Amino acid sequence: MSATYAELKEAAWRANLDIEELAERTWGNASVADAPAGVMAIKPSGVPYARLAPDDMVVVSLETGKVVEGALRPSSDTPTHRALYRAWPRLGAIAHTHSRYAVAWAQAEQPIPCFGTTHADHFRGSIPVTRRMRKDEIAQAYERNTGLVIVERFEEGGIDPLEIPAALVACHGPFAWGAHADETVENALALETVACMAWRTRALRPEAAAIDDALRDKHFLRKHGPAAYYGQSRKK
Amino acid sequence: MSATYAELKEAAWRANLDIEELAERTWGNASVADAPAGVMAIKPSGVPYARLAPDDMVVVSLETGKVVEGALRPSSDTPTHRALYRAWPRLGAIAHTHSRYAVAWAQAEQPIPCFGTTHADHFRGSIPVTRRMRKDEIAQAYERNTGLVIVERFEEGGIDPLEIPAALVACHGPFAWGAHADETVENALALETVACMAWRTRALRPEAAAIDDALRDKHFLRKHGPAAYYGQSRKK
Amino acid sequence: MSATYAELKEAAWRANLDIEELAERTWGNASVADAPAGVMAIKPSGVPYARLAPDDMVVVSLETGKVVEGALRPSSDTPTHRALYRAWPRLGAIAHTHSRYAVAWAQAEQPIPCFGTTHADHFRGSIPVTRRMRKDEIAQAYERNTGLVIVERFEEGGIDPLEIPAALVACHGPFAWGAHADETVENALALETVACMAWRTRALRPEAAAIDDALRDKHFLRKHGPAAYYGQSRKK
Amino acid sequence: MSATYAELKEAAWRANLDIEELAERTWGNASVADAPAGVMAIKPSGVPYARLAPDDMVVVSLETGKVVEGALRPSSDTPTHRALYRAWPRLGAIAHTHSRYAVAWAQAEQPIPCFGTTHADHFRGSIPVTRRMRKDEIAQAYERNTGLVIVERFEEGGIDPLEIPAALVACHGPFAWGAHADETVENALALETVACMAWRTRALRPEAAAIDDALRDKHFLRKHGPAAYYGQSRKK
Repeated sequence: MSATYAELKEAAWRANLDIEELAERTWGNASVADAPAGVMAIKPSGVPYARLAPDDMVVVSLETGKVVEGALRPSSDTPTHRALYRAWPRLGAIAHTHSRYAVAWAQAEQPIPCFGTTHADHFRGSIPVTRRMRKDEIAQAYERNTGLVIVERFEEGGIDPLEIPAALVACHGPFAWGAHADETVENALALETVACMAWRTRALRPEAAAIDDALRDKHFLRKHGPAAYYGQSRKK
Repeated sequence: MSATYAELKEAAWRANLDIEELAERTWGNASVADAPAGVMAIKPSGVPYARLAPDDMVVVSLETGKVVEGALRPSSDTPTHRALYRAWPRLGAIAHTHSRYAVAWAQAEQPIPCFGTTHADHFRGSIPVTRRMRKDEIAQAYERNTGLVIVERFEEGGIDPLEIPAALVACHGPFAWGAHADETVENALALETVACMAWRTRALRPEAAAIDDALRDKHFLRKHGPAAYYGQSRKK
Repeated sequence: MSATYAELKEAAWRANLDIEELAERTWGNASVADAPAGVMAIKPSGVPYARLAPDDMVVVSLETGKVVEGALRPSSDTPTHRALYRAWPRLGAIAHTHSRYAVAWAQAEQPIPCFGTTHADHFRGSIPVTRRMRKDEIAQAYERNTGLVIVERFEEGGIDPLEIPAALVACHGPFAWGAHADETVENALALETVACMAWRTRALRPEAAAIDDALRDKHFLRKHGPAAYYGQSRKK
Repeated sequence: MSATYAELKEAAWRANLDIEELAERTWGNASVADAPAGVMAIKPSGVPYARLAPDDMVVVSLETGKVVEGALRPSSDTPTHRALYRAWPRLGAIAHTHSRYAVAWAQAEQPIPCFGTTHADHFRGSIPVTRRMRKDEIAQAYERNTGLVIVERFEEGGIDPLEIPAALVACHGPFAWGAHADETVENALALETVACMAWRTRALRPEAAAIDDALRDKHFLRKHGPAAYYGQSRKK
């Protein structure tokens, strides 16, 4: 086991275990990046969570996409992760799951509205959904293009990926991210929770509207940014 | 550990553990008050339940809002609890959660109708929902104002907070309370259960109406008040 | 501990533990009757399941309603159980729960249609719902009258209580029963399962209709009655 | 215990345990076939999962339907399994459950549309639902006819049972299968997951449409067939 990448693989392994309940069997994957070193560590493809060990994580070059260290084949979604890290170098970790409520919104091709403070504590606005991918985007470099349609959606909407650290890929499912692994896991878990709450809100009141911007920003900013006052310490 | 506040902190710690399943990660908090002593003990801000110890609880003055004992920062929702204890001195404990069904009703900004006896066993009427807070109420003393809009709703409706020991804050979530810690935990758990049952009832029959007052009072009063005959003893 | 009633109390204790998951905290109760002896053993009122012991069960006379053996107060629903045993002497056990899906149908005051074979394996037709109780029935002998409105509903409908061994009390919740304790527990658990499946079926297709009588009877009769061929033995 | 059938019974026992969570009490059953030997091993009828041992499995001849080895009565659904193995000799295992979301679709008599990639990863198109069975098909050889209406539905639709390895029997519930026991268990679990996701998608957007064929085939074929590139090895 390489001393160089040991910590990165350990962090990626831990993040994968933390999202296990959301992943639904082997259908999810998390990665952790080391931007200065130009690499990420990611889950191997199709391996059950119960059997994962830190050294099973695969280290992949962000520049070339090639495996730098690891005996197993990396997740088939590796090019999606890579496309996101390359577009947004501030990202420290990414989690992709098939969590059931978030998938329902993705399959309905509808953004998750910011219906309450649970949502606003984590995401400063609705969770965007990508457009459907074109036939040619599916036929070639499909997984890379999956990342690119997420980036396209954020660029067109002028959205800061660290203010809304999640997206729904149409007809597929959620991706969440953050500056660090812990934050990424928290965002992935929060995303499923708010997807559930929003689903039930919509059922109760189809015309329900998003909360006021003032309340949304109050909650987002009391947890994030320079004026945060939630928790025990302003710096993690 | 102060001998004076040790029991209060122990009771608050226990109440926080009891609502853990409702709280959704670290997003809930419970407090227990000692009215004669003019203090409450409350959960520290943003600490995972698994790591909480009785001595982590923070003792806060009901009059000044200042920390009287404790090394950690108290829950950011402390001013909400304080506003409720000051308005209603009969309250012995308060629990705030982000339990999912109750949040859905809060986000839909609809009161939970008293659709059945499970509801009436705990709450003598529908669970009220507050109005949305104004921009100025959010900008300054937000958490205190959260408590004040609850009190305002009960005063306007002429509601006795010990007959309907819970409220939904619009676009946010539930608060529950009671004369004692045990009763408060029971009310918080019952609230989520009846929120779930009511949600499913509404889905099955959108025009479903509240139960008759006679049935509602029969159930509430066989469990509460001087003529109660449910359980093993009339005095807890 | 009385040798006479020891087995009956043990059976009632076991049935109460078996329905714990359906009961929602302390809000349910099961009883087991010994018709020749003219008694039933029932759960004490308001005692948490975790603390129940066989000898806590209360033995009550079916004829007089008086406690024959036991130190605790019997369930406040005891007169409901008694009314059912007196009307239908073939019943060997009764379970009352606040299981969430069955309560939703009871609160919506709608019978649960026989939408499929899971239902027909246990109940030979839709689960009836009682009428609302009148003010005078609530004011006096409420719990006994709860049993009587169930009996009234079955008599009016010409329903055999061992062919449809469950009912929904309007605005309240489910009662299930059977010739023996095991069968009663099975029916209570099956009732919540079919209530869930029917709720989801209705949501998917509001105009969904009951299954054909031929299919319903095929399933009910391959498990029940003289021509049953399901399981390892025809006689339990 | 026969040395000849020991492995087959072990595999069938394991498959039955693996589907336990879907089966809902004793209402499910799995079988594993040995086509060259002309037999299948199947769960005994009505035995709780907790008490099952490998040697309780019953070995049945695919040709005659007679018990070849085993002391217990085989599942009452044995003739359904047999009809499927005889029609489709490529099947290595079959699982029948009463999993709740799949049953809801079966009771609503609606196919489960392919709304997303979780579905397409396992099933190359919507999950078909059979027609209702006729009175004469129910009266005689009911269980065998249950298998035949599944086969009829696939033949009429020109569907390859290994491309869509599951079906819903109208007013009853799901059957899933595969070339091997592991694959069959995976398909049965995936079926319930996609039934849940599709149910929630439909609720959110009643007019939701199936995904494009290009995306569906991309996902199905990256996991199945000669060009598969998901997982650690192309050959299981």
